[in-house]
Amino acid sequence: MALIVQKYGGTSVGSPERIKNVARRVASWRAKGHQVVVVVSAMSGETNRLIALAREVQAQPAPRELDVLAATGEQVTIGLLSMALMDIGVKARSYTGGQVRVLTDSAFTKARIVSIDEGNIRRDLNEGHVVVVAGFQGVDEAGSITTLGRGGSDTSAVAIAAALKADECQIYTDVDGVYTTDPRIVPEARRLETITFEEMLEMASLGSKVLQIRSVEFAGKYKVKLRVLSSLEELGKEGPGTLITFEEDIKMEQPTISGIAFNRDEAKLTVLGVPDRPGIAYQILGPVAESNIDVDMIIQNVGHDGSTDFSFTVPRGEFAKAMAILEQIKSHIGAREITGDNKITKVSIVGVGMRSHVGIASKMFRTLAEEGINIRMISTSEIKISVVIDEKYLELAVRVLHKAFDLDQVPA
Amino acid sequence: MALIVQKYGGTSVGSPERIKNVARRVASWRAKGHQVVVVVSAMSGETNRLIALAREVQAQPAPRELDVLAATGEQVTIGLLSMALMDIGVKARSYTGGQVRVLTDSAFTKARIVSIDEGNIRRDLNEGHVVVVAGFQGVDEAGSITTLGRGGSDTSAVAIAAALKADECQIYTDVDGVYTTDPRIVPEARRLETITFEEMLEMASLGSKVLQIRSVEFAGKYKVKLRVLSSLEELGKEGPGTLITFEEDIKMEQPTISGIAFNRDEAKLTVLGVPDRPGIAYQILGPVAESNIDVDMIIQNVGHDGSTDFSFTVPRGEFAKAMAILEQIKSHIGAREITGDNKITKVSIVGVGMRSHVGIASKMFRTLAEEGINIRMISTSEIKISVVIDEKYLELAVRVLHKAFDLDQVPA
Repeated sequence: MALIVQKYGGTSVGSPERIKNVARRVASWRAKGHQVVVVVSAMSGETNRLIALAREVQAQPAPRELDVLAATGEQVTIGLLSMALMDIGVKARSYTGGQVRVLTDSAFTKARIVSIDEGNIRRDLNEGHVVVVAGFQGVDEAGSITTLGRGGSDTSAVAIAAALKADECQIYTDVDGVYTTDPRIVPEARRLETITFEEMLEMASLGSKVLQIRSVEFAGKYKVKLRVLSSLEELGKEGPGTLITFEEDIKMEQPTISGIAFNRDEAKLTVLGVPDRPGIAYQILGPVAESNIDVDMIIQNVGHDGSTDFSFTVPRGEFAKAMAILEQIKSHIGAREITGDNKITKVSIVGVGMRSHVGIASKMFRTLAEEGINIRMISTSEIKISVVIDEKYLELAVRVLHKAFDLDQVPA
Repeated sequence: MALIVQKYGGTSVGSPERIKNVARRVASWRAKGHQVVVVVSAMSGETNRLIALAREVQAQPAPRELDVLAATGEQVTIGLLSMALMDIGVKARSYTGGQVRVLTDSAFTKARIVSIDEGNIRRDLNEGHVVVVAGFQGVDEAGSITTLGRGGSDTSAVAIAAALKADECQIYTDVDGVYTTDPRIVPEARRLETITFEEMLEMASLGSKVLQIRSVEFAGKYKVKLRVLSSLEELGKEGPGTLITFEEDIKMEQPTISGIAFNRDEAKLTVLGVPDRPGIAYQILGPVAESNIDVDMIIQNVGHDGSTDFSFTVPRGEFAKAMAILEQIKSHIGAREITGDNKITKVSIVGVGMRSHVGIASKMFRTLAEEGINIRMISTSEIKISVVIDEKYLELAVRVLHKAFDLDQVPA
């Protein structure tokens, strides 16, 4: 008998029929003798409906009251799922974030979890109940309802799993695991049996949006065993999904590269010929940050002749705004020229193995060069190498890299 | 400066536009320097939508979980109304029943209020906030969400007014007060400046559905000054509504009759010639009650020759079912005959004054007789007299009684 925390997202609970399907899946785990806590999101579309309603009343909804409103979405789901479970003979009991109690700070609409009181859940589990908890929400010290921000249900599930010292936290999604890359681009893409937390973090932030980044960080911090599974697979025929592991568990034979991530939503801006002096990076990025533009990659090369070039990437929707800001500050910072390109894309290879292997980067660059793909920017971290290339080469680049690093081969 | 509790029902908050109207009305009371607590219902249609959703998942929804679901209706409204208030510069803060905390028993879907902690509300009022509270809901000792049953928002408002010792509890509806009878039947019907709690109870239970009965009982018990007002009147041109008073406040000149109530939804069943022995009433009504049929009037006349006749009224929708039950038990109880009529209606005159005046009943019966209206059943209480007559005479009966008791005349 294990204690399992399961999380089902908005699509999985998007209709009464789907909620009944989730109930049957939960019941099958109970039937195997496991204790189960289920964390759920709002029914798909519900959160957007509530936010639209709020905006009709107040253009910039007051954050505390927006959370009061938004929290009803998950509250409806916990009630319905508990009913669906009871309807098939499974004892169940629902809890809002406040009832659990999931204590958060008071940063409404983007609160962070401070602590979780596991007393109520533990008692109900011991009495044989499935406990159904509203994800995405908590209460602050004053008893006000808070939400963790969109997608926060994953974080709720991991935090509850950590508090309960659960044997496993299962995140049910519409994919049956984490893949070496997007199967729509590379048909040979393979489901990974395991992936490390750090790789998962890089994969998530690079566009493989299977899990919320915060939930992965949280799982890593509290050593929660996290598994990605599909909520669409037929009962009794489920695959094992992908288990997210700690680095210390990794075998030596771990392949060097685990997967290839990419992000189409990138545009690149370059400030050419700025004086190479302290503070120049802040002078350029300060005004961009103040306009709430998200900046992804930032690259500055060594200067020469007292001047340097400075590049960064932003989401494409912010490209025009970012260009306008750079043009405004151009003369003030003494730049020679501003250039930009919004037809670019970022491709990254990710793997904890790469840090102990030389030659990964050169293999990546050579593979791309052999296909005539020009690399526009390069950025590296401990466990990933990202390159910016022309958008038109994206599919080709992902395919040749996937093959070059033997990702289509099941590891020995 | 007064402390006022206002309650707005589902129709008054049925859309973002209407919620903004309520906000403006609340703001106008704040502008006069009053402290205001607002109790709201779910947006009209919302509670039914949620219950329908529950039934899709479980034919007989589990009561605890149904309350979890239903309580979201008011929670949405408190968030939206607080936003609407802030949007026009009024400081506001929302509370669910659990946050207040409105402590109830654990009778899910029909809980009763045990106590109200007024600390949070008092503090916010003193800080200059309008406090917006979700009606219809509370929490039990275990922290589970409860609801007071449909229409319970009136009761929430009165209970909160009692806990705060508010100067007045204002129930906003779609009528501008309590009338001597239905103005659609008697154009001369007059709005009452005041009505006693007991009269209001009789008026409410007899079909003048302005206020929930339980809220009136509650107001009487805790001596809450209750006022019925219209939420549709133009701002700055509001009438005074109808104040519900305690009997001890009544002047001696109080008119004997305050109003005329009626209920079209009645059907009459009679069991003729049953043995006049102990237990016969139970033998007849027991099976009816077990079938969950609501019984209104019950009349049994003195027996003669060892047998008696027994009559009662039920809602028309239950008439056929009740007749079938009586036919089934007919031989068992030894009845001679079963008769029924679903073309009847009940008309009642109500007034605390009548208990110190003889002759009210005879005046009522004479007035009806003069119009050739046959009385089929009579039932009396301390402050009301009800008669059952043929449906076709309803309007005529109400009009002549209204005139006979001078209800169209403003009292001196």
